[in-house]
Amino acid sequence: MKFLTDDFLLTTKTAKKLYHDFASKMPIYDYHCHIDPKDIYEDVKFQNISELWLSGDHYKWRIMRSNGISEEYITGNASPREKFQKFAEALPRAIGNPMYHWCHLELKNYFGFDGVLNGDTAEEVWQLSLEKLKENNFSARGLIRQSNVKMVGTTDDPCSDLKYHKLLLESGFEAVVCPTFRPDNIINVHKVGFTDYVKKLETVSGIALESVADIKRAITKRLEYFAKCGCRASDHGLDYVVYRPLGEAKANKIFKKALKGKALTKEETECYQTELLLHCAKEYARLGLVMQLHFSCMRNPNTAKFKALGADTGFDCMAVTDSCANLYGLMNALEQENALPKTILYSLNPADDQWIDTLLGAFQSDEIAGKIQHGSAWWFNDNKVGMINQLTSLANLGILGNFVGMLTDSRSFLSYARHEYFRRILCELIGTWVENGEYPDDMVTLGNLVEDICSNNVKKYFNL
Amino acid sequence: MKFLTDDFLLTTKTAKKLYHDFASKMPIYDYHCHIDPKDIYEDVKFQNISELWLSGDHYKWRIMRSNGISEEYITGNASPREKFQKFAEALPRAIGNPMYHWCHLELKNYFGFDGVLNGDTAEEVWQLSLEKLKENNFSARGLIRQSNVKMVGTTDDPCSDLKYHKLLLESGFEAVVCPTFRPDNIINVHKVGFTDYVKKLETVSGIALESVADIKRAITKRLEYFAKCGCRASDHGLDYVVYRPLGEAKANKIFKKALKGKALTKEETECYQTELLLHCAKEYARLGLVMQLHFSCMRNPNTAKFKALGADTGFDCMAVTDSCANLYGLMNALEQENALPKTILYSLNPADDQWIDTLLGAFQSDEIAGKIQHGSAWWFNDNKVGMINQLTSLANLGILGNFVGMLTDSRSFLSYARHEYFRRILCELIGTWVENGEYPDDMVTLGNLVEDICSNNVKKYFNL
Amino acid sequence: MKFLTDDFLLTTKTAKKLYHDFASKMPIYDYHCHIDPKDIYEDVKFQNISELWLSGDHYKWRIMRSNGISEEYITGNASPREKFQKFAEALPRAIGNPMYHWCHLELKNYFGFDGVLNGDTAEEVWQLSLEKLKENNFSARGLIRQSNVKMVGTTDDPCSDLKYHKLLLESGFEAVVCPTFRPDNIINVHKVGFTDYVKKLETVSGIALESVADIKRAITKRLEYFAKCGCRASDHGLDYVVYRPLGEAKANKIFKKALKGKALTKEETECYQTELLLHCAKEYARLGLVMQLHFSCMRNPNTAKFKALGADTGFDCMAVTDSCANLYGLMNALEQENALPKTILYSLNPADDQWIDTLLGAFQSDEIAGKIQHGSAWWFNDNKVGMINQLTSLANLGILGNFVGMLTDSRSFLSYARHEYFRRILCELIGTWVENGEYPDDMVTLGNLVEDICSNNVKKYFNL
Repeated sequence: MKFLTDDFLLTTKTAKKLYHDFASKMPIYDYHCHIDPKDIYEDVKFQNISELWLSGDHYKWRIMRSNGISEEYITGNASPREKFQKFAEALPRAIGNPMYHWCHLELKNYFGFDGVLNGDTAEEVWQLSLEKLKENNFSARGLIRQSNVKMVGTTDDPCSDLKYHKLLLESGFEAVVCPTFRPDNIINVHKVGFTDYVKKLETVSGIALESVADIKRAITKRLEYFAKCGCRASDHGLDYVVYRPLGEAKANKIFKKALKGKALTKEETECYQTELLLHCAKEYARLGLVMQLHFSCMRNPNTAKFKALGADTGFDCMAVTDSCANLYGLMNALEQENALPKTILYSLNPADDQWIDTLLGAFQSDEIAGKIQHGSAWWFNDNKVGMINQLTSLANLGILGNFVGMLTDSRSFLSYARHEYFRRILCELIGTWVENGEYPDDMVTLGNLVEDICSNNVKKYFNL
Repeated sequence: MKFLTDDFLLTTKTAKKLYHDFASKMPIYDYHCHIDPKDIYEDVKFQNISELWLSGDHYKWRIMRSNGISEEYITGNASPREKFQKFAEALPRAIGNPMYHWCHLELKNYFGFDGVLNGDTAEEVWQLSLEKLKENNFSARGLIRQSNVKMVGTTDDPCSDLKYHKLLLESGFEAVVCPTFRPDNIINVHKVGFTDYVKKLETVSGIALESVADIKRAITKRLEYFAKCGCRASDHGLDYVVYRPLGEAKANKIFKKALKGKALTKEETECYQTELLLHCAKEYARLGLVMQLHFSCMRNPNTAKFKALGADTGFDCMAVTDSCANLYGLMNALEQENALPKTILYSLNPADDQWIDTLLGAFQSDEIAGKIQHGSAWWFNDNKVGMINQLTSLANLGILGNFVGMLTDSRSFLSYARHEYFRRILCELIGTWVENGEYPDDMVTLGNLVEDICSNNVKKYFNL
Repeated sequence: MKFLTDDFLLTTKTAKKLYHDFASKMPIYDYHCHIDPKDIYEDVKFQNISELWLSGDHYKWRIMRSNGISEEYITGNASPREKFQKFAEALPRAIGNPMYHWCHLELKNYFGFDGVLNGDTAEEVWQLSLEKLKENNFSARGLIRQSNVKMVGTTDDPCSDLKYHKLLLESGFEAVVCPTFRPDNIINVHKVGFTDYVKKLETVSGIALESVADIKRAITKRLEYFAKCGCRASDHGLDYVVYRPLGEAKANKIFKKALKGKALTKEETECYQTELLLHCAKEYARLGLVMQLHFSCMRNPNTAKFKALGADTGFDCMAVTDSCANLYGLMNALEQENALPKTILYSLNPADDQWIDTLLGAFQSDEIAGKIQHGSAWWFNDNKVGMINQLTSLANLGILGNFVGMLTDSRSFLSYARHEYFRRILCELIGTWVENGEYPDDMVTLGNLVEDICSNNVKKYFNL
């Protein structure tokens, strides 16, 4: 088969029909990403493909580092054109990497480039991008619009005033841009900057934060504000799932110790975090918000690079963590208080996939089909094998038809191509089952299932 | 390919030949299940398909819960017909789930239903089942007979009088119904009900149980009774594998503490459990019984549902446990005393598959080919991918030809279809190897291998 | 497809072209094996196929044990012919095992035997091998030469005088035979024989070893000697990765305690080991040597067999270990001191594959493309599925094109067939991608990638 045709990743008749007649026509609800709402509101445009592709995409930086490219051409002072050249030279070495597919899908879909990107074609692509990026549909809103995106879920600090979300709402922009409540800063009591953050939250919330009870009140106040501004979900980035429920009094002592700048033990940190996590979850349940938990992440393992370049620059990794028993404990505690919100669970480590898929089944309810979800193959797992494994595990151990589907988790306006990537893989998987005689060849049922997983389930799940 | 034809899951000529000419003709030895021997002895009949399918099958309950169905229609007071309707409506959503295949195989094999079960066809299937279930070969024995089952291994408490096993033996029923010794209640010193259980065992065994030595004597006495009644195997349901060998004196103190109703530490529990587990294993070795150990299970993680519905109602899950080093320790200790019985190891977590398959190779002996076995993909892993992975890992790291094969672990008389499912997957896997040039196309050798894995190995392993 | 044709494991046109036109022509750099350099220097010949195959190959011993064969026929006193018979009888049972493929590849490539080895054909193969082994190209050097091997990396104790490496260098033998520095004996402070080993190292190094500082000096001295003798790499066999950096003073106290023969705690052992491991790594970085770390191994779990047969007799297994966070810590510490050498990481447990592949990306540099490597699927993972998984994970999470590729880790002169096995699997994987439209059908780029992974990358990486 030729490279990246219209039937890319689709090998059976059923898969092609499911993708072209159903999946490809469905709108995108990108409920979890890291796009700046200001960029959408201001409808930013991009000077060149390096600005669009290489200025903040740590996936691409990893590819470059793995090819022995010097930091000068990655995060350093080399020119945008030089950086693009280095990336273009590295890409062909990354055979089998999803980046190879994403890049070429984006070049094809947005720039109409049907060729292969490498060191020799870099100049052609560069020039093409310069032309194209002048067009109006290459602004932030233009890209969202032409990608058939109906909803964008950003990631926002509890202290955010959500100014741009409100302005976007007023602006009548056709895609809904929802803030997502991400209270990591107030939960990570052990990290540098915690006391400063408490002061900031004090100012924003107008509540003097002298106890855990105060913190809880501030969280609730901000969360209610978020909900008023269209928030549908929260997002917790946990290195690992904690569950050490020792009560508010104990957590309060730890909080006071932390405010004094004293170092906390691991147990103390976990106690405070558990108390806050439980509070957040209960509030999500009360307000009908979705709770997203992601874990098994090793943050900033390379201290030298962290000092030089800061966080989120492509050094985070998968970790093996003791999250299993704790997650059961956390879910159980909430369920016992009838306060378990709709929950999406993501582990960065795919070795966790299968126990997560069994856990779902122990906490479902008649509130909504698929109340507890296993999030889409994500970050490092956002590749063909990772997606197939996540979908297959979910199908084996739960109900695939109730899955809320794909998210980009991305900082880029071109990443909607990853929804296409996901949908092709989904249709190929289902097509294979059908043509292997494992599910009836009934296009009405199959089409519904595919449309549900692409769009309908997530729309319903997020009350859109 | 059409759905669920006679060549279901068989895509190559070799696979079809191996299945139809060899595997499908072999009798079933279902050495590990949860059928009540009383039901077999009394040759019970079933009123309708809900009684047969939904009254005790927590796999199906999970499907229903994952579809947002209220507990009323699962374990509650809704009518059997209503429950069946809800299940039929949920099933098509579970694309890719083994339940979809099992149900349709059972409907086809036992009821002659060639269609698709869903909300629309539920009434047709219901009526069909009402008719069919009146027939004689739909009684417990009828189903066993028509499924070509030669042996059923039930699961029995050491205190059981095995009345129905004895009656069945006398009855001349053509399938052997063997009790399996499951001493979890006497090993789980930390669980509610332990002291009551000790009293019960005291009565049954006629031994005053005042020390661990007494417990050991009682176990031995009951085990010898089981062996006399046709028992071939034991079964230990461990949350995780323990190995804390601190000796009988220490275990004895812990036992006495437990009898007084005092709470035990994790270390104390493990010490007592290890002492008893070692005793059991040695006795199995002495009596030539098979030891089955299964682990990495999270029991009753949803306390609210456990209080409402009790154990074994579909809430148990996979767990990540520290079983690896302990299992090596346990096996080694027994081997050092020349007291390692034939052993079948099952982990509920498939992430354990590969180290288990290497462990086997360190403890084999010339007592019997494949003395230490990695049990079939089981419970949550009893699906196409799970089976392929278990078989492939075993083939890569051990000798697949010596595998004792499939078990249902089921409470249902229709579950023998899972042996068919396993056999089709086995034949497809081997067929693919052969047609890919990875094994010679020698039907005599291949047929023997398949027949061995389906029936001959297990027959020999269990001394049948 | 017929068994083991010239297109064995190659199903697509692209795969066949890549293998036959590129991969099969590339020389072998077998940078990690356990061949005795003395055997190469003395150009030993073999009496029969049992001597060649069964005298030291614990992979084959495992197959035999798993078939219920008595130790007499494995490591015992049975005749070579009898042992070969037992192995030949076991082999057909091991359908799907890589041993089945390796054996038949070796019989085909070296002995010209196109048939199937089993109990019936054992005599024919035996006689054929007797004839063939008389020929000159069946000596150690003959086998290396006819296998197109350009480099052999042996495994050597720091105390070794490397006599045979030096003699080989003088001899003008066309393959480079490089010593590999394996300091396990001086790092395993907790193992029996440590104090004796210290005395030996004292003699060899001419340094009185009274402190950790002395040990470090001795290591450096031996390492410089190794480097002078052509050493390119080290190899550390860690049960699990340790990282407990408490400083030299503390390590020194522990060392002195160990010298007195006192038992060490786990923490003490780890502290000493960490100190030495860090020293070694820094010296590797200074001298431009490759560091190989392998872990998640359970050594000698069967004490009875260990006492009877000793180490490395086929009882070692995979383990689940707490290596993840420690490995991050170790790499980070070295990177912070700008002293991280080129590193190849191997876990015996494939559940570790994916986090390792993410870890690589956090420690790459512009020193060389692919400075930090995930070693080839190895030991128990050296099978078709294991290789596909390792290659796919690496491709998904890093740059496959920069991979240093295959090693045998073997004690046998026929094991070069495993490079062929790897190359066929690599070409099949890439071929599938290309014919599935996932990479352009550009034979120049593809051929280069394959040649790089087969030979060019490793040649560059080891400065050959």
